Amino acid sequence: MWTYENFPSAKVQATYGVKIDKPWLDHMRAASVRLPGCSASVVSKDGLVLTNNHCVVDCLVELSSPEKDHMKDGFLTATRAEERQCPGMTAEILVGTFDVTDQIRAATDGKTGQDYATARSAAIAAAEQANCKGEAGFRCQTIPLYRGGQYVVYRYQRYTDVRMVFAPEFAAAFFGGDPDNFNFPRYDIDAAFLRLYDKGQVVKTPTFLKWNASAPKAGEPTFVSGNPGSTERLLTVSQLETYRDLTIPAAQLQRSELRGRLIEYGRRDGEAKRLVADPIFSLENSYKVFFGRQFTLNDAAFLDMKRREEAELRAKVAADPKLAAEIGDPWGEIDAAQKAYADSFLAYRQLESDAGRGSQLFAWARTLVRAAAERPKASGERLSEFADSRLAGVERGLTTAKKVELPLEQINLEHWLLKSREYLAADPEAQAAVLGRESPEGLAARLVKSKLADPAVRKALWDGGAEAIKASDDPMIQFVLKLDPAARGVRTVWEAKVSGPTDRAAERIAKARFAAYGDSVYPDATFTLRLSYGKVAGWTHRGRTVEPFTTLGGAFERATGEEPYALPKSWLDAKAGLKLDTVYDFVTTNDIIGGNSGSPVVNAKGEVIGAAFDGNIHSLGGAYGYDGAINRTVVVSTAGVTEALKTIYRRDALVKELTGK
Amino acid sequence: MWTYENFPSAKVQATYGVKIDKPWLDHMRAASVRLPGCSASVVSKDGLVLTNNHCVVDCLVELSSPEKDHMKDGFLTATRAEERQCPGMTAEILVGTFDVTDQIRAATDGKTGQDYATARSAAIAAAEQANCKGEAGFRCQTIPLYRGGQYVVYRYQRYTDVRMVFAPEFAAAFFGGDPDNFNFPRYDIDAAFLRLYDKGQVVKTPTFLKWNASAPKAGEPTFVSGNPGSTERLLTVSQLETYRDLTIPAAQLQRSELRGRLIEYGRRDGEAKRLVADPIFSLENSYKVFFGRQFTLNDAAFLDMKRREEAELRAKVAADPKLAAEIGDPWGEIDAAQKAYADSFLAYRQLESDAGRGSQLFAWARTLVRAAAERPKASGERLSEFADSRLAGVERGLTTAKKVELPLEQINLEHWLLKSREYLAADPEAQAAVLGRESPEGLAARLVKSKLADPAVRKALWDGGAEAIKASDDPMIQFVLKLDPAARGVRTVWEAKVSGPTDRAAERIAKARFAAYGDSVYPDATFTLRLSYGKVAGWTHRGRTVEPFTTLGGAFERATGEEPYALPKSWLDAKAGLKLDTVYDFVTTNDIIGGNSGSPVVNAKGEVIGAAFDGNIHSLGGAYGYDGAINRTVVVSTAGVTEALKTIYRRDALVKELTGK
Repeated sequence: MWTYENFPSAKVQATYGVKIDKPWLDHMRAASVRLPGCSASVVSKDGLVLTNNHCVVDCLVELSSPEKDHMKDGFLTATRAEERQCPGMTAEILVGTFDVTDQIRAATDGKTGQDYATARSAAIAAAEQANCKGEAGFRCQTIPLYRGGQYVVYRYQRYTDVRMVFAPEFAAAFFGGDPDNFNFPRYDIDAAFLRLYDKGQVVKTPTFLKWNASAPKAGEPTFVSGNPGSTERLLTVSQLETYRDLTIPAAQLQRSELRGRLIEYGRRDGEAKRLVADPIFSLENSYKVFFGRQFTLNDAAFLDMKRREEAELRAKVAADPKLAAEIGDPWGEIDAAQKAYADSFLAYRQLESDAGRGSQLFAWARTLVRAAAERPKASGERLSEFADSRLAGVERGLTTAKKVELPLEQINLEHWLLKSREYLAADPEAQAAVLGRESPEGLAARLVKSKLADPAVRKALWDGGAEAIKASDDPMIQFVLKLDPAARGVRTVWEAKVSGPTDRAAERIAKARFAAYGDSVYPDATFTLRLSYGKVAGWTHRGRTVEPFTTLGGAFERATGEEPYALPKSWLDAKAGLKLDTVYDFVTTNDIIGGNSGSPVVNAKGEVIGAAFDGNIHSLGGAYGYDGAINRTVVVSTAGVTEALKTIYRRDALVKELTGK
Repeated sequence: MWTYENFPSAKVQATYGVKIDKPWLDHMRAASVRLPGCSASVVSKDGLVLTNNHCVVDCLVELSSPEKDHMKDGFLTATRAEERQCPGMTAEILVGTFDVTDQIRAATDGKTGQDYATARSAAIAAAEQANCKGEAGFRCQTIPLYRGGQYVVYRYQRYTDVRMVFAPEFAAAFFGGDPDNFNFPRYDIDAAFLRLYDKGQVVKTPTFLKWNASAPKAGEPTFVSGNPGSTERLLTVSQLETYRDLTIPAAQLQRSELRGRLIEYGRRDGEAKRLVADPIFSLENSYKVFFGRQFTLNDAAFLDMKRREEAELRAKVAADPKLAAEIGDPWGEIDAAQKAYADSFLAYRQLESDAGRGSQLFAWARTLVRAAAERPKASGERLSEFADSRLAGVERGLTTAKKVELPLEQINLEHWLLKSREYLAADPEAQAAVLGRESPEGLAARLVKSKLADPAVRKALWDGGAEAIKASDDPMIQFVLKLDPAARGVRTVWEAKVSGPTDRAAERIAKARFAAYGDSVYPDATFTLRLSYGKVAGWTHRGRTVEPFTTLGGAFERATGEEPYALPKSWLDAKAGLKLDTVYDFVTTNDIIGGNSGSPVVNAKGEVIGAAFDGNIHSLGGAYGYDGAINRTVVVSTAGVTEALKTIYRRDALVKELTGK
């Protein structure tokens, strides 16, 4: 996950015999695109952009109508006139980076606490203003790299007219559904094409990635250019152990039970099945992400590696008396915070961080109750989410109409209350703060009678402030009002004893790391542009070797006709004419994480050979550290996409734009 | 968990200043009773036996009728004439133990494999015959202690006419239900009284425990005499790590999801709620047992202690060249087996050990399919569960009428199939062996159409053997027939690479332990009589101190009137006259585990002061090792029971028999 400024070309040359020089990097950077939560690349001179189907789901839903379901049926265009704008979609291309560390340091030097925060915010705003100057079509963003070791302004060219060109059917793009998610072999055409427009015209993009439709070869070097969202590779071993032993297991066990409830509820009838589809989809995705993370943390060899890394860094600090004096013992401080973490985690989780999870009514009520208490205070003294800078967003979120599904409210509330009773068994005061003397089932049934689903009711309570809240007879408002002192109490303890001390210590560990290694290590992911190197390769785990490729023909073998293994009609109809031995999906050793979805996968010549759309189950442990033996990026190949565009979807113009033929 | 033969009286004297001499031990042993799966004690000269309410549930159900539900209403008698026999219940009192290690060794010396097993079985049978000689009313059982380090014949006097004297209402006995299970403070009268009869007469029991109805004191020494069922304290660290990281988490996540499904199914209507009540009860109990075990294994300090113990034992072996040569490196062999374990665990679990769990139809089908294949073979060559000695039991189990609940069959099968698809994602052959090309939902719906619920159908297939099985068009039979080669395949791999090598190595570790420590350590639990010493004490964990006592008044404070916190009418009616400050339940540091339920808790004078009915959540880790700082036994006090018998249940005759007043 290297920054472009600091790509280890010499190491790549030594390992793969590939020369990555400045022109190569400049070209790749100029063709790399950032989408909301995703990555993409420019693949023609006419602003054509390749990304994943799952990165354009919101757009497909927006463009759909009762008559036409583009999620289900895909989105096909024959001419540019049929391309349709994705409402609210933006695309950004990085055009420059500026190190502003000295400015930030100068502005904050010697300051602490609130003074420090205020000065830092002001210096960041000034740095962004200096580098973008309010120019239309550009955006500047200050990113703290190395957890504050370095500050860099990222300057982007921004496109706000992004149009849908092509998307396959959901059944083909997400073939295999949850069972195959984060697994390989895979048979997914998780690809889509967009096009950049400006003032109604196609944006000319002379810098684009050449489309290479030949099959990739095993061992071939691969590069992934994209925006990995967030990693936690700088956590200490004691923090990882807490995640392994407490945080993740508690969350996963609760997710599993809720999953069972949603699945079983969906068995009632068609309407119930429809209701639970989305919640199950996101729950199963989260479940699998943390399943993979847990798996990595349970791997003794992985934690041993982390222990060695930590010992090495600590030895380096100890060997430099000046540095040692400056750094102190942040590891010891974090170890101590782990004890406090274990002591208050369950109460903090059930009463505050995960309170009412999945209940929209609860979320609204808590926002209303807290906003009423916080807004009369000075901005700096409020709970951080109610600071002046965020208040407008809070109000907008609260007053926007949103459908509430009462059966889901009941299930989510009941589940939260049941698990609070269970997990807080050893903490009767916290348990009583949530449940009083009511049963989980009865309390949930009472709370869903809330009238907060009506935006006008919410607006009136927002405008009415503390008096209106106090006077309200809404059961959810009164429930949250009663719970809030205990919830704020555990939050205060958590911030004072866990998150506060941890953050302060982590900053000093980052400083130590930077002092010891400089930029010979890459910073944790920050959803900014990074370049990863690797190669096409399968892997071996638990005695089983997974080959790096699948073919289009494999999809037909895997298909059973039953969801999620049912190929769409277009595929079944086209089978006879399809080159079934075409490489479809493949895996590489590149190091990616959520945010990288849609990233171009390129060969040594910088030609695009696929779009990254997933990792294998082991790659999820990449949140904590990369293991080249088993972490894999899952890619849909340009070879497979080209054959599908030609033979299944018959998009001749698109194929010609990509391949020239 | 000391055997009576080897109780560390000197250590107890030094620690608690209490003299435990041979008469004390002989008296206690003669008053200790073993029930099926439980423990108990004789508490009057007229064969009155104290145990837990949860140990007599089967009897209460058997004695109930559509007109009278003794589980719900309890079982009250005013005179002995009203005492009713518990069908099938037996009570055993240990009357002698005989070390037969030399005989077993002599008979098996130099033998291996099947020869060894056959010779050992014959020697065991001979030892039991020699010590019981077929005397009526006696039973002999050979127990391998120290995992085969020692063989002891246990000779019991056996009572087959055991009658119900008193049981409270379920709502009072299991007040707090699953949320409070394995927790403390508790407010449960988990007590019941039985009486021993012989030839229609009350059995005279001059040796009984004196009933002491005064409240126990904090710090007071306590002894628990009972039959702990099974512990795994001799596992190696690598085995514990496998349990921690793989075995338990996989099972718990699946249990959680199934729990969610059952809970949600129960929300449909009253009949659904009734259907899921029992399965949820046992699922939640298992879930909590393993939650506690996981908790202990996740405790770094606990595993460090295990590491130190293991290192010490290995050092002792290494220091004795003769022993070292004999023992070899069983730890290394077990470490190696852990890799094989991880490689094949999921397939073994989903296809074999947990295949179809919860589906009675599947269980019958597998028995039928396998019996048909095994019965034609010689006994010694069959799968062990079909050996001649077990075949009659298998047939009885198969042909006994048993109600099948199709909605539960559907949920359990579907869940198993869904999780097989999910957990076998990296093992496509195993996945296909279970599902073929069907969906979990569709396959389950097809399988529940099986006709095996009809005992006549099962009998015909049993009698018809392989030909009848092959000719059957029953969907479950055909499904199991198709699955069986793969299931047997993973079982063979498991036995060859995991369980076989592990057992062989474990035997040598036991030998090493015995050589190094002799009997200065106690053997793993074997559901035979043990005596544990400890004291009345609360505990402190995560900054919270739990006091050792609750009072009867606390039950009324805890009661909300909603299940599982609804006290029965008898309690509510009697509240005014009750001494609310009477000690109700309490905790001690005694080391117990499942099987100890109902054990008498006695003071230094050997007077009974309570019945053990549960452990706290930390005690569940006692499966792997005892931690005196936090492991606690939960006891219902004789003080509380006496006050309840007097004031709530008004059982004057019973109170007089116990207290003389």
